[in-house]
Formats: sequence, structure tokens, C-alpha cells
Amino acid sequence: MQKVDPIARAKLLTMNILITNDDGVHAEGLIFLKAELDKIGRVFVVAPDRPRSACGHSITLHKPLRAEKVALRDGSVGYASNGTPSDCVSLGLLGMIEEPIDVVVSGINHGPNLGWDLTYSGTVSAAMEAAIMGVRAFAISVTSYAPRLDYGPAARFAAALAQMLAEHDMPESTLLNVNVPDLPPSQIKGVVVTRQGKRRYSGQLEKRTDPMGRDYYWLGGDQPTDSLEEGTDVYAISEGWVSVTPVHLDLTAYSSIDEVRSWGIQGIRVE
Amino acid sequence: MQKVDPIARAKLLTMNILITNDDGVHAEGLIFLKAELDKIGRVFVVAPDRPRSACGHSITLHKPLRAEKVALRDGSVGYASNGTPSDCVSLGLLGMIEEPIDVVVSGINHGPNLGWDLTYSGTVSAAMEAAIMGVRAFAISVTSYAPRLDYGPAARFAAALAQMLAEHDMPESTLLNVNVPDLPPSQIKGVVVTRQGKRRYSGQLEKRTDPMGRDYYWLGGDQPTDSLEEGTDVYAISEGWVSVTPVHLDLTAYSSIDEVRSWGIQGIRVE
Repeated sequence: MQKVDPIARAKLLTMNILITNDDGVHAEGLIFLKAELDKIGRVFVVAPDRPRSACGHSITLHKPLRAEKVALRDGSVGYASNGTPSDCVSLGLLGMIEEPIDVVVSGINHGPNLGWDLTYSGTVSAAMEAAIMGVRAFAISVTSYAPRLDYGPAARFAAALAQMLAEHDMPESTLLNVNVPDLPPSQIKGVVVTRQGKRRYSGQLEKRTDPMGRDYYWLGGDQPTDSLEEGTDVYAISEGWVSVTPVHLDLTAYSSIDEVRSWGIQGIRVE
Repeated sequence: MQKVDPIARAKLLTMNILITNDDGVHAEGLIFLKAELDKIGRVFVVAPDRPRSACGHSITLHKPLRAEKVALRDGSVGYASNGTPSDCVSLGLLGMIEEPIDVVVSGINHGPNLGWDLTYSGTVSAAMEAAIMGVRAFAISVTSYAPRLDYGPAARFAAALAQMLAEHDMPESTLLNVNVPDLPPSQIKGVVVTRQGKRRYSGQLEKRTDPMGRDYYWLGGDQPTDSLEEGTDVYAISEGWVSVTPVHLDLTAYSSIDEVRSWGIQGIRVE
């Protein structure tokens, strides 16, 4: 972990960190994360009261948000909300937590957030919400669905990264998306800054009939196929590196603007 | 509307179009859209059974999806699903509709999908899902929350654009995000291909107490402030143009990669 000089360290201990996730307030990944962040700052927890995986960047506008104080697994007190991860960040940054928040950390997610999956991710969307509000933020995930994981390496990396973030300005509306391979620390090769890769799904739909004779469907499919281009998050993870991708909210396909113009779209008459 | 030669027209009438939205299967915008698309192809409707605004790119993995046949407002039959807009696209493309779909159109949304709002948008996420599956798609919105809108100009533009899409290859995992100003056709200046702009929110949280003495919160805030840079979607709409933005799923902040590397992230020891 990076060394911090004594003055910087004193400053860091006054740092206020908000953590949330999409696996729910009682998830193991959040507790491991909190244990490490407790060493470098004051940690506030506002997280969903139940798992919210694959919720995307949902926000709750049409019903009231609740946030109940709950005892966390480490004995401290946090907030469990009926909202989405993004709502939890709004609650934390817009006044429910009275202290000003310096850094938002979302995770540690149980499972990867790589490639095209980012747009589905509740974990990443929470960090997006913080970035929109101008607060430094990152999402962090361990890239395995195994029932039991060692969150230690990811949690210690998160603490080092939070310290680093506190000392640097983030570019506007930008956040970091971190993925940590599920390997013992001695087998993790290091850290690499990456770009987002591609994942291909061969999505499948399974039709079944319920006891009342009505059809229903399950969405599923095989494991995604990653396009393992060097320099991408999916490649880094496949090679045993921690991947850090700077992510922003500009979805413009700049390289396609001229092509789409060339179709003659701008000549369509609106009538 | 663009002219189509007779051979192309015959081909277009064999085009299969899937429409969905996030305002629900009975929303007026969807019916106006269908009426125009019916003129150029065979239209299938799979849409949420209730409004799903601000649902982001949610997908339903943990419960079964239902899709009931319902009578639409125009007397035809469509599917109403308990899933999100993205789920509706999966249902339509993965086999519930037996015909192969050529183009997916999501909308017409009641209200804008501009700037940073894209990541929250159920309308846009439906088109994203189609793009991930390799199907040409666009999202279309009228940029007003007025209770009654004239969806005619947007619906006619959608038909022209669907014809154009059918004749061009879309770049990989790219979709179009269309916004139409709420103006009479004579006051719409034309069509412009744009980049995504920025919207700033001064988010607000209002705390209230329920009759049982428990706190709850409403998320809200003032109208967003658009950063009116020329060339952006928000600028185009403010000037009375139809805005078409090519959007992709690569969220990498390429311009920040070097900066983030310069912090020394790659030197953090993972332990």
C-alpha cells in the first residue's frame, strides 16, 4: 500500500467516506470494505435494504425513500434504504448525512463489472451519481461469483485508492471502475489503468408454463464471451491484474457522427 | 419525409419492427409511433405493463417475466410485460416474437432524454439492449412534460429514420438517441446530428415525517440547467432542431487515462 506522510495522514483521518453497494447493506463485501476504510477516514454507510443487482442507473422519483438505522455486521450503525444504490448516494450527499462527503466508494461487488455490463450495474451507477454531483467516486468489484470470496485484497486496494483520490482532482463527471481478480494477493500481478472492453452475450429466453397454464419466461444465457483485446478491463482481469478504468457519462459515439451524417439524416424533412 | 423508390418500398414493407417504451404499453406516444411505423413495415409491440421511467438499464434476472397479450388503443394486439423496457427487447428479440426483427424503436417518450440523463433512461436502455444484441435501434423522445403533446412530427420522423436505418449498417453496439422539440412542424428548423451535452442538477432532498413518526424523504430538485454548448443535443433542442445523437456503450473516459495513470495508481501494491 502507498506510504502517506504524517501531515497527509492527519488530513486523511478527517476524510469523510460514504459507502454503498448493490448487494445490500448486510453483504460481506461492504463490511470488508468498511473495515479497511475505517483506518483512513470516517465512514458512513447508506446502502439498499436488499440486493439490487442489475438495477442499472435507476432512481426513485415516484415514491418516498426510507432510510432506517440498522446495526451492521461489525457492530456499527448504518442506513438501510428502500431505494436503489444511486438513491443511497443521493440520500448521503444531499443532507441525510450532515458531514460533507469527500469520497464515495461503491462495493465491494460480488461479481465482475466489466465491458458492456457497466450500463446494467447498480454498483457503477452509484459512483456515477456521485460523479454527477461532483464528488470523487469509484466502484469496486471482485470478479467471481463463487459463494465465498476473500475480499481482503480488494478492500485494502480500495483504501489505498481512496487516499490517492483524496489528493487528486478528478476530471469532470468522471469516476473510476475497479475490478479485482479473485486470486490470492501473491498471484495478482499488479494494477493497470485500462479501457472498457467488450462482452458478448448469447442471450437466451426459456419459456415455461405455470400450474395455472399461463406462460412465463426466464432470461438467461451462457457465460459472456469476452473480446480479449489488450488494454481492456476484461483482458487485464483474464491476465490476473487489478483493472482501473476511468469512466464518464458521455455516451456519444464520436467516431460514428460523420458516418451517421453521411446517411443524409439531416436532410429528412420534419412535417 | 424522404422519398423511397418502389423496389426499396416493397422491401421495406417486409421489414419487421419491434417497438417498446418506458411509459407503458398504453401510453399515447407508443400508439402514435405505431400508427406511422405500420405504414412502412410489420410492427410488433412488447412494452412494460406500467410506467417505468428512470429505471435505467435494469434487467430482470431474479424473477420470471410475464408477457400478456393486450388490446392496444388502436385495436391491434401487443404484449404487456412485467419487465423493464430492456427486458421487453430481450423478450422480443430472443424468440417470443417468432419473426426476426430488423429495427427496434423505443418511444415515443413523454419528456426529454438529453445530456447526462441518458444513463437513467429506460427509453434509451431499451435501444442499448437491442444494440448489444446487434440489432439496429433508436430511442425517440418529445422534449416536453406537458400533459398533452402532438406526437405527430416525432412519429413521422421515426418512420423516415427507421427506413433510413434499414438501408445502412450501424457501427457495432451503437444506437441513435433522438429528441424532438415540442413545436409545430413549421417551427422545427430541421434535423441535426449532435453529441451528448451536459445537464446540471441541483438535487434536493426533502425530509418529512409520516403519521407514525417515521422519517421519509423525497428526491427532487429544480429543473436541470443545461450547459448550452454548440453541437450538443441540449443546444439543438433549445434552438428548435430535432437532435440525433449516435450513442455507444463504451463509457471509457479516454482523455482521462493518462491523467489517472500519472497519479501512480499502477504503483499501488496489492497485498
